[in-house]
Amino acid sequence: MTTTTDTSTTTRNPLPPISDDEIFAGHEGGKLSAELLRPLETQRDLSIAYTPGVAKVCTAIKDEPELARTHTWTGRLVAVISDGSAVLGLGDIGAKASLPVMEGKCALFKSFSGLNAIPVVLDTNDTDEIVETIVRMAPTFGAVNLEDISAPRCFEIEDRVKEALDIPVMHDDQHGTAVVVLAALTNALRVVNKSFDSIKVVLSGAGAAGVAVAKILGDAGVSDVVVLDSKGIIESGRGDLTPTKEWLAANTNPRAVSGGIDTALADADVFIGVSGGTIDEKHLPQMADDAVVFALSNPNPEITPDIASKYATVVATGRSDFPNQINNVLAFPGIFRGALDAGATDITDDMKLAAARAIADLVGDDLAPDYVVPGALDARVAPAVAEAVEAVANAAGVARG
Amino acid sequence: MTTTTDTSTTTRNPLPPISDDEIFAGHEGGKLSAELLRPLETQRDLSIAYTPGVAKVCTAIKDEPELARTHTWTGRLVAVISDGSAVLGLGDIGAKASLPVMEGKCALFKSFSGLNAIPVVLDTNDTDEIVETIVRMAPTFGAVNLEDISAPRCFEIEDRVKEALDIPVMHDDQHGTAVVVLAALTNALRVVNKSFDSIKVVLSGAGAAGVAVAKILGDAGVSDVVVLDSKGIIESGRGDLTPTKEWLAANTNPRAVSGGIDTALADADVFIGVSGGTIDEKHLPQMADDAVVFALSNPNPEITPDIASKYATVVATGRSDFPNQINNVLAFPGIFRGALDAGATDITDDMKLAAARAIADLVGDDLAPDYVVPGALDARVAPAVAEAVEAVANAAGVARG
Repeated sequence: MTTTTDTSTTTRNPLPPISDDEIFAGHEGGKLSAELLRPLETQRDLSIAYTPGVAKVCTAIKDEPELARTHTWTGRLVAVISDGSAVLGLGDIGAKASLPVMEGKCALFKSFSGLNAIPVVLDTNDTDEIVETIVRMAPTFGAVNLEDISAPRCFEIEDRVKEALDIPVMHDDQHGTAVVVLAALTNALRVVNKSFDSIKVVLSGAGAAGVAVAKILGDAGVSDVVVLDSKGIIESGRGDLTPTKEWLAANTNPRAVSGGIDTALADADVFIGVSGGTIDEKHLPQMADDAVVFALSNPNPEITPDIASKYATVVATGRSDFPNQINNVLAFPGIFRGALDAGATDITDDMKLAAARAIADLVGDDLAPDYVVPGALDARVAPAVAEAVEAVANAAGVARG
Repeated sequence: MTTTTDTSTTTRNPLPPISDDEIFAGHEGGKLSAELLRPLETQRDLSIAYTPGVAKVCTAIKDEPELARTHTWTGRLVAVISDGSAVLGLGDIGAKASLPVMEGKCALFKSFSGLNAIPVVLDTNDTDEIVETIVRMAPTFGAVNLEDISAPRCFEIEDRVKEALDIPVMHDDQHGTAVVVLAALTNALRVVNKSFDSIKVVLSGAGAAGVAVAKILGDAGVSDVVVLDSKGIIESGRGDLTPTKEWLAANTNPRAVSGGIDTALADADVFIGVSGGTIDEKHLPQMADDAVVFALSNPNPEITPDIASKYATVVATGRSDFPNQINNVLAFPGIFRGALDAGATDITDDMKLAAARAIADLVGDDLAPDYVVPGALDARVAPAVAEAVEAVANAAGVARG
């Protein structure tokens, strides 16, 4: 096997190349193990954990279902559920081939939040079947992290599962991304001394992440967002819009501009790319002074940071080898931990806003153009996010205590 | 809370009473934990386990699905799946209340076989829905242990899931019990110097365990089995038979007897109770000399061992506080371990017979009327069963190697 090719040209913290052998060795036997909380060694251990003792616990849960939160592992268990239809940069690779990503996600949950997480991959792409399957097995776990489900099905699936279940449910590709983008933008605006209600934002990409970013920006008080898909600016005059894009047309683009990236970027304060595409350097000079560029596509940003930095004061990407890495791992472990600790019946928009604030606040006085979000490995982040989310859940009355 | 009442009157190895407090403390936070096989601490760890490295493993599995067995945790992962409809002595308590039992079963899998196991409880009792739900999520795991699903649905569900999937599937309440009964009977017949093809067996109980015991006895060469349900001997003249009992009527009771337990036990060599009911002492004297009585209902055997011993040479129960405990834990950990180690596409009847033989063989020269099966905590059992099952799978060509 050969070593992987590093496609970046300018890296600040380059990792030594990782060989395929090293990657495959790192996945041998999988990445998770189901272990016992207490040993099962004696007849007495068996009589407590299994028959006849366990019958007492079953009966107690039948009488008072909330006891399942404290007396089964579900109180701290997240299911990472996917149909393998939109995996990383790989697209629709199916349930089985998506397993290594879902196992990896579960490993991140454990490492960053201490929660248990198990991968569940579904051998169907049908929206109705996915929803009904998740609902049927819902007593199995305490929360649902939907992962790598393609748009636009992901929107309906998340809506319907949230509606059907009284446990925390979140499609991370949407909301995890949105929370970290909002955290980074909060601090970027502090750097350039601009405010949410005065900025013009251009958002390239109207998939799972794009839609959620557009919504959270609105919730945060940004009034001028222009969203582009592969065909250009989304506006109500277009005849080719899906229901989700109809929603975007109705709720963004207040100046009713139409056209392409060139029109969109004129005098824009912020560019956010979650498109998987690229933009040409020639469009950047027309952005406003002290511009902000978040080029988040992975592994290839919409524009490389060395070029973006010529025109923008703050530049962020999704990559670990550049500064300002906007990575979902800053959000989802703490959000689910806070929601489960609160016994929340839902993950609300206010909980997401609180998570973004908590991430942004950790930067504090160290704020700088190349430090608007904590590093992905910063161990302070998940506990701070969890605490903020739990507090909002408790205050909002979605907690079961 | 008060201490539990010990209902046994004669115990050889009585356990000190276990208090409710001790039981609930033993289930606090559940019994399982999802842990990492390798630490995730550095950026390099993340780049291997998650993006970008994981994409190589996903692509490899897409090209060669068998790699999921070696490069995800599914190669050693059993799903313990129930709808909570026939839980221990508790009956139909529903999905959520059954979770402590399923978690306990998973803990047994880990302790005895080293396999990973996760509980999956389904909020439906509908046969079609259960089958389709399991089939949809099948890429999630490497094998399926169906558990505590009520008869007669359990038969159709197991048949259809086995047919639909090319991984090991077994309803343990049926076949785990049958395998251990056959192991114990093999050695009991050595004690009394009788042979499978000459004995008359009375089997009380035509639920999941009873049907499977009847089948495995036939596979082992027992030709004279009389099965009773709550209405008496199952024979083709009865007009109230379910399809499963029609099968029993056609495949057991060669002397075409009818009536109740009294008729059945006349000159019988073996009584096997898996009924949940009781039998009166007055029926036992008519059994043949050197009789064998397996009174397996839990927690209350069909007849207590002190009474049964007055009429039978070998007596076994399902309880840990009497000798000769016939407990599924002797079978299922090794059966699934052997099947998964072989990469078996099925759990066949021959694999079950091999498991029973392996359990019986471990008793060896220590054979005695009060020692016809190894103890439930005997650490030799699961590896011996696994080895025997794997060998049969390899020989039969159901292994993927």
